[in-house]
Amino acid sequence: MIIVLKKEAQKKQIDYIIEKIAGLGLKPLYMPGTEKIVIGAIGDERVLRSLNLESLPCVEQVVPILKPYKAVSREFKQEDTIVEVRGQSIGGNKFTMIAGPCAIESEEQFLATATALRAQGINFLRGGAYKPRTSPYSFTGLEEKGLEILKRVAEKTGMLTVTEVVDTMDIPVVSEHADILQIGARNMHNFRLLKKIGQTQKPVVLKRGLAATIEEFLLAAEYIVSEGNPRVILCERGIRTFETATRNTFDINAVPLLKQITHLPVIGDPSHGSGKRSLILPLTKAIVAAGGDGALIETHISPETALSDGEQQLNMAEFKRLLDEVTPLAQLCGKTIN
Amino acid sequence: MIIVLKKEAQKKQIDYIIEKIAGLGLKPLYMPGTEKIVIGAIGDERVLRSLNLESLPCVEQVVPILKPYKAVSREFKQEDTIVEVRGQSIGGNKFTMIAGPCAIESEEQFLATATALRAQGINFLRGGAYKPRTSPYSFTGLEEKGLEILKRVAEKTGMLTVTEVVDTMDIPVVSEHADILQIGARNMHNFRLLKKIGQTQKPVVLKRGLAATIEEFLLAAEYIVSEGNPRVILCERGIRTFETATRNTFDINAVPLLKQITHLPVIGDPSHGSGKRSLILPLTKAIVAAGGDGALIETHISPETALSDGEQQLNMAEFKRLLDEVTPLAQLCGKTIN
Amino acid sequence: MIIVLKKEAQKKQIDYIIEKIAGLGLKPLYMPGTEKIVIGAIGDERVLRSLNLESLPCVEQVVPILKPYKAVSREFKQEDTIVEVRGQSIGGNKFTMIAGPCAIESEEQFLATATALRAQGINFLRGGAYKPRTSPYSFTGLEEKGLEILKRVAEKTGMLTVTEVVDTMDIPVVSEHADILQIGARNMHNFRLLKKIGQTQKPVVLKRGLAATIEEFLLAAEYIVSEGNPRVILCERGIRTFETATRNTFDINAVPLLKQITHLPVIGDPSHGSGKRSLILPLTKAIVAAGGDGALIETHISPETALSDGEQQLNMAEFKRLLDEVTPLAQLCGKTIN
Amino acid sequence: MIIVLKKEAQKKQIDYIIEKIAGLGLKPLYMPGTEKIVIGAIGDERVLRSLNLESLPCVEQVVPILKPYKAVSREFKQEDTIVEVRGQSIGGNKFTMIAGPCAIESEEQFLATATALRAQGINFLRGGAYKPRTSPYSFTGLEEKGLEILKRVAEKTGMLTVTEVVDTMDIPVVSEHADILQIGARNMHNFRLLKKIGQTQKPVVLKRGLAATIEEFLLAAEYIVSEGNPRVILCERGIRTFETATRNTFDINAVPLLKQITHLPVIGDPSHGSGKRSLILPLTKAIVAAGGDGALIETHISPETALSDGEQQLNMAEFKRLLDEVTPLAQLCGKTIN
Repeated sequence: MIIVLKKEAQKKQIDYIIEKIAGLGLKPLYMPGTEKIVIGAIGDERVLRSLNLESLPCVEQVVPILKPYKAVSREFKQEDTIVEVRGQSIGGNKFTMIAGPCAIESEEQFLATATALRAQGINFLRGGAYKPRTSPYSFTGLEEKGLEILKRVAEKTGMLTVTEVVDTMDIPVVSEHADILQIGARNMHNFRLLKKIGQTQKPVVLKRGLAATIEEFLLAAEYIVSEGNPRVILCERGIRTFETATRNTFDINAVPLLKQITHLPVIGDPSHGSGKRSLILPLTKAIVAAGGDGALIETHISPETALSDGEQQLNMAEFKRLLDEVTPLAQLCGKTIN
Repeated sequence: MIIVLKKEAQKKQIDYIIEKIAGLGLKPLYMPGTEKIVIGAIGDERVLRSLNLESLPCVEQVVPILKPYKAVSREFKQEDTIVEVRGQSIGGNKFTMIAGPCAIESEEQFLATATALRAQGINFLRGGAYKPRTSPYSFTGLEEKGLEILKRVAEKTGMLTVTEVVDTMDIPVVSEHADILQIGARNMHNFRLLKKIGQTQKPVVLKRGLAATIEEFLLAAEYIVSEGNPRVILCERGIRTFETATRNTFDINAVPLLKQITHLPVIGDPSHGSGKRSLILPLTKAIVAAGGDGALIETHISPETALSDGEQQLNMAEFKRLLDEVTPLAQLCGKTIN
Repeated sequence: MIIVLKKEAQKKQIDYIIEKIAGLGLKPLYMPGTEKIVIGAIGDERVLRSLNLESLPCVEQVVPILKPYKAVSREFKQEDTIVEVRGQSIGGNKFTMIAGPCAIESEEQFLATATALRAQGINFLRGGAYKPRTSPYSFTGLEEKGLEILKRVAEKTGMLTVTEVVDTMDIPVVSEHADILQIGARNMHNFRLLKKIGQTQKPVVLKRGLAATIEEFLLAAEYIVSEGNPRVILCERGIRTFETATRNTFDINAVPLLKQITHLPVIGDPSHGSGKRSLILPLTKAIVAAGGDGALIETHISPETALSDGEQQLNMAEFKRLLDEVTPLAQLCGKTIN
Repeated sequence: MIIVLKKEAQKKQIDYIIEKIAGLGLKPLYMPGTEKIVIGAIGDERVLRSLNLESLPCVEQVVPILKPYKAVSREFKQEDTIVEVRGQSIGGNKFTMIAGPCAIESEEQFLATATALRAQGINFLRGGAYKPRTSPYSFTGLEEKGLEILKRVAEKTGMLTVTEVVDTMDIPVVSEHADILQIGARNMHNFRLLKKIGQTQKPVVLKRGLAATIEEFLLAAEYIVSEGNPRVILCERGIRTFETATRNTFDINAVPLLKQITHLPVIGDPSHGSGKRSLILPLTKAIVAAGGDGALIETHISPETALSDGEQQLNMAEFKRLLDEVTPLAQLCGKTIN
């Protein structure tokens, strides 16, 4: 950690800081410059954070040298984490296709969509039972009834399921009905939810928040992993920027950058990442080419009647075309689709 | 609502849309332009939203004319909402000063801070018992023990208290110990929390999300109000932008704009809005001058020892200076400080 | 065009607007809703813009239906524009690799880099003679001397050259020394420069501004094309967002979206788009997979001695690896590298 | 300067860096941590920048300790810069009101506006002759004819004038016709323009770029000052963010922060900063309260007929009301309006 002091810092203040650093077992280093005084602290700076040195009036800036996350970092664990879910795996040399409608609207709609996807070889089925919506007047999902549909359809089709959990209270019921939990973008900063899911052993797809930096995204994952659940799959789904031509700006850089920084699998969500049906195919291809481990694609047996997000859901013919184009691309990039 | 069709839209598709609009009791209006076909729908378009017309492949764009919120709008209720809390009021011709530390760290620290603030005439005391933190390794508050301290100190000093609630599970216990609930920026999109608080009659300070538009902010308030709790105080606390010289970019425009659009009181948080002790005074003055109804100011008996956010907390002398400058300014702007 | 009036709009004001619309030869359409009055205008709304209806106090909002650009749109010209440059073409089924150093530093450095690139089959050579730099104390290029080096090296190697022009005054001299002009991100809004280049017939790479929307980007291109120069190549190079882990956020959505909206070729700049050497390869692959027409890649014979942007320039071995991975990918996507 | 090395850095590489630092006359400091190796460099790090250490493959991060600007900083010059313009001054204890239309549309319109403003005691008159516009089809100003009107009206009314210069070529003619030059937001990064204006002695209002950080804004000013022209007035005019309810997000924090960092006067532009007529008054008051040195306010004798930006221009009655409210506020804040 590097502590930059204000010009007017007094000797007494400097000594105080140096003492504090030494007191925690780190080695302080005094560097008086021509314009600023700088103090370095050699050792595990995470313990230093508790000192809140930036609160001292004589301190101008504190520059951390180490990253604030640990358990999720490549430095901590070099080999890729592969999340096993009932015989299927996410990460490594797989490119996992997770498809299904935005929301479970009825048993008919969901079963028809799932059956059609299964016929195309898809193993992972998504469908929302609890739908966080910006407006209180929008359709917010079938809730528990939706979870029951999810489970029945999974049993009939033999697919693995992913569904969102929006409140700590719902963790038990969702865990019982689904194979993989999803934490939505709006809940990435819901630290209580992260912690409680960290105390289970359920695989979890963690979506990046709309305005979360990559560092904050990794710290959210660290909440889960540090509680004891290492089965986290990161999902880039677009961030909020000034651009309004698309629903979100998909941060394609985040895919390879995360793969370099963390050992966790990294998938992408081209549906929310663009918000436009016509962009889902090229964006999925970009995710594959950039080294992603999978994609979450909204598909609906009849998007024009969807109760939510119809403009970003593919119909079955569109999804087939996507699969046809993505399969050889994934192969060229050293991945098999599962 | 205005529906813009793609150039290649077929007569059959156009007729389908017109029929749907008429079927919901609205009046459709066909406007064939030279380059685009446009369909208008006259009547309460909120019912139209359920059609999800943007999902139709022939639709290029749907332009809503009405705002999606209703109960919180000035058009719905013209006069200012004034939130009464045990003899004090927020809104109208008051400028409400809410002060206190970021976190309740101990009974001594909190009582000392509260007593000093009370001596300066402050009525509203803030203090966090549950602290959402970006890193799992940071201090996250004293939780229930903190709530008990909050209540005891409130009784001793006769102050009204504000504290954050981070999970639906905690609503009962927080409601019992505090006068006003706070929903933090990271939970503004936690729709379950909004709804459940909407089912109580507790006054609530709702903070704007880091990446929430003004429209989304009002929709979050609409969640609470539409459930039956009209006692909402909006709090602008800065948004996330590309600028890194300050912790957040305080959206000063939001203060007068919200006052024009909604009847709810609007306060500001200069501590999070700038993240810099030296900016809190000028920013508070700007909030007053722009027509705000109050400010939430982090103050600490000894900021340099604070367990969180020390760099943006004022000490008692700094807070006194702030009060001395803000008081005549508020008067000039037609407000009395309470 | 749709004009939404304020609730309190008077009959006289409404009549005034209707008259104005009719006066310009468009057909006005009066739509009195339950809460708002809306007026539609059928016909070429571009003429309507001159009325500045949004300035009228009774007008709440003006919603344009048509896009403000014309000559660059796919609706205006359906087939892809292919820019021919001395026997080579950009656009269509080509994926154009433009490589070379950020800045021309000396004849030795530039010739060595060019020769090495030429040996790898590269036809397009980039190199900056005028370097816009954020700080007045940074290296700002060799200027005219750099242009002369550029020309000599082009002659020796038989390569086509791209270089930036930063001021209207320099257009003649840069045009004389280079094959393709570049307008940098910081000049995308320099309308005088756009216009003057529009009056030449030089091919031009137009980079998207740091904070430019896709619509503004296309309007910048419209400035050039509407002056008579149709030889514009659009270049996505990343936008500025809150994320600081990368230099810019590459807007991958922009690549396919632009290809759908405009007939102009669309290339990407993975060097500025990420600012990190380790991301250039995956990002280039994403550009290919998303349907881009080329890439602008900073390469340097010895990046560690570069006078600018060394951290985002590839050395020759890294560039070779990139070419080896990108070539089969481009083929799979139906493109040949040139 | 702090240089953080990658874990795998070799002794040879470390020695190379240490040698380079020493070779430039700075004192290197070797700090081997448990996880990272850090090298400090004590002395004037500006000379170090030329080494481009971030280009070295073994370097993970370079953390500058000193700010990259010098001449504009408070550390360089403590007392406020006051810009004198023909008997009037900007900065210090003045709050300078600069008013006038967005564009000079005709001699009648401009003279009428100026005369009405003069009658209200206004000394500084703005009016655009060259108007940068996003679309090539919008009104772009009367150009030289506009400059002549500007000069004649200034002579008739005895006012001081401010007008924008958009191209290096126009500096002589604009300098001859106006008292103060303006560099618009879209040209803040036009380094050639900055430099050339730095070679004159004309006072200049420098507007912050839409996506410019405060540091980049100050570096743009440094370009002018370091060339020899110290007469720079900084103007915050709003930045681009995700919020679309207002045209821009006015960064109110920037006003007091700039006043702390730099000795140059800092004014605000509430017209562009909000883009909404109804927000101009509260925003101007916020600028005063936050410690600003002036405001640039678009006023028009008849905004509803304005050829550009009518929705953000005040009419004379609105401007009078603004002046009436701002005058006592400025006094309370220790400023006199000029």
